[in-house]
Amino acid sequence: MISDQLIKAIIEKKSPIVVGLDPRLESIPKEILDQCFGLYGETLKGAAESILIFNKGIIDAVHDLVPAVKPQIAFYEQYGVEGMATYKETCAYAKSKGLIVVADIKRGDIGSTSKAYSIAHLGITKVGNSFHKAFEADFATVNPYLGDDCMCEFMDEVKTYDKGLFILVKTSNKTSGQLQDLGVEGGKVYNKVAQIVAKWNETLVGETGYSPIGAVVGATYPSELEDLRRQMPKAIFLVPGYGAQGGGAMDVVGAFNDDGLGAIVNASRSIIFAFEGTNLHFEKAARQATIDMRDAINSALERVGKKYW
Amino acid sequence: MISDQLIKAIIEKKSPIVVGLDPRLESIPKEILDQCFGLYGETLKGAAESILIFNKGIIDAVHDLVPAVKPQIAFYEQYGVEGMATYKETCAYAKSKGLIVVADIKRGDIGSTSKAYSIAHLGITKVGNSFHKAFEADFATVNPYLGDDCMCEFMDEVKTYDKGLFILVKTSNKTSGQLQDLGVEGGKVYNKVAQIVAKWNETLVGETGYSPIGAVVGATYPSELEDLRRQMPKAIFLVPGYGAQGGGAMDVVGAFNDDGLGAIVNASRSIIFAFEGTNLHFEKAARQATIDMRDAINSALERVGKKYW
Repeated sequence: MISDQLIKAIIEKKSPIVVGLDPRLESIPKEILDQCFGLYGETLKGAAESILIFNKGIIDAVHDLVPAVKPQIAFYEQYGVEGMATYKETCAYAKSKGLIVVADIKRGDIGSTSKAYSIAHLGITKVGNSFHKAFEADFATVNPYLGDDCMCEFMDEVKTYDKGLFILVKTSNKTSGQLQDLGVEGGKVYNKVAQIVAKWNETLVGETGYSPIGAVVGATYPSELEDLRRQMPKAIFLVPGYGAQGGGAMDVVGAFNDDGLGAIVNASRSIIFAFEGTNLHFEKAARQATIDMRDAINSALERVGKKYW
Repeated sequence: MISDQLIKAIIEKKSPIVVGLDPRLESIPKEILDQCFGLYGETLKGAAESILIFNKGIIDAVHDLVPAVKPQIAFYEQYGVEGMATYKETCAYAKSKGLIVVADIKRGDIGSTSKAYSIAHLGITKVGNSFHKAFEADFATVNPYLGDDCMCEFMDEVKTYDKGLFILVKTSNKTSGQLQDLGVEGGKVYNKVAQIVAKWNETLVGETGYSPIGAVVGATYPSELEDLRRQMPKAIFLVPGYGAQGGGAMDVVGAFNDDGLGAIVNASRSIIFAFEGTNLHFEKAARQATIDMRDAINSALERVGKKYW
């Protein structure tokens, strides 16, 4: 199962880290922009090609250090059709380098529409009697607001093509509590989502003890992390909010089980744009920032007795 | 404001209806598929071109009857980059025919990511010193699960470019109640979302009395519709669930204010695939189904004393 692949890659690379590929054109090195604008002008194509070159550089720099990357699709959608082509090529390039790809798409809709999203990002599209991959990732993030008949629509692809999901449970942003923390019978809204995840985890779990149905739980809410860790012992946590959003290494240890596993911590800006304000090449800076983050998280895990390596 | 444009178009066309452009390749007329597969093979391009021809036919058939169309982006994403090109061209073609375009994208993420979605679908993308439209719609549907710091990110585009939103409040699907109906202090989860919408409506409202910040409320829950109508008097309701999903004309009258306005009812399959099982051309069947739906809803509104024309 994909959850086993992820857990094994974490152990092998000693790195419970996912690098977020959230490119911001204005932060991409000038020499890349000059090259692509020279070829294509200041067009969506020029932007998309710049991002692709940058992403490939980041993937080259970190692919042996981390198990996974997580492109945030919004940063590609804003460059239109050309941006979506770069999104697709980024996923393919990461997979060619042995990385697990988490599509941060936060989709979720009524049943038949969720099914279309699931086919688009995790499955296979049928055209006449031919079959194609629209986009290709290993995991997708899913928004639970429409309830589980919608989340269930992703399960066919999960089971048939060995894919995984990360359901948004408690997000890292400032007002995440506005709906997610509302008190309901037996807990909070996010506990209800966690219940759904935990229930699925009972029926779908790999040999490592972890399920391909994971949960997004933000680093910026450490106490909720621990609470949710207990509620979903078999779920892998995707933990955003580290680095630029304010979470530190000791904030995320609660996301891990006592075996030191069960979580991957995401950092985007603090890795991919680590070169800003330095004289380093962007790839070198990203590599160093990844090593620093890995060491900081591993040290924190060791300190709390959660050594997994 | 775009809300005024929508209300005026509803009155002018005597039609509080939005046609959902949710193309399913397997339901597209064989002659279109034959033509495009002949040119491009059974490829994503062949699929995307078939959908574009079909959509243009539907738009030609209904553009004088309805104020708006609503492409559901999942049905385009599943055909990859080529599908996204068709999505973009569909929006552009609909606008060229004077229709208001509702992008049914149900996006929503942390602040900076929501901003990227907002730029992508409602705003303008900056590339160097040039400006481009990635995709172009007039309204976008937004998922509220992350709270209003994320929804707020769409407001810049709403105000700067005269756009609108429909926030998911109570959706039409079977398990929508799983989270949305949970009891919280002072009501249900969906009432909390409605509160946010109603608050924004106080500060942003057009000359017709309606705000560009609307709400998605499903036709399949008539009593919730009336409850929410009272709670958000200035919001335009986008009402899915009519037709194939089971809602009828009398189920949706609660979505309208006493002035007979304030709602647009969506139908997708029951209009665009009305030709299935008949001998009619798909355009003719879609046109007739739209007229029938318009008349049914207008009759129902008249019956309950909500005549707006």
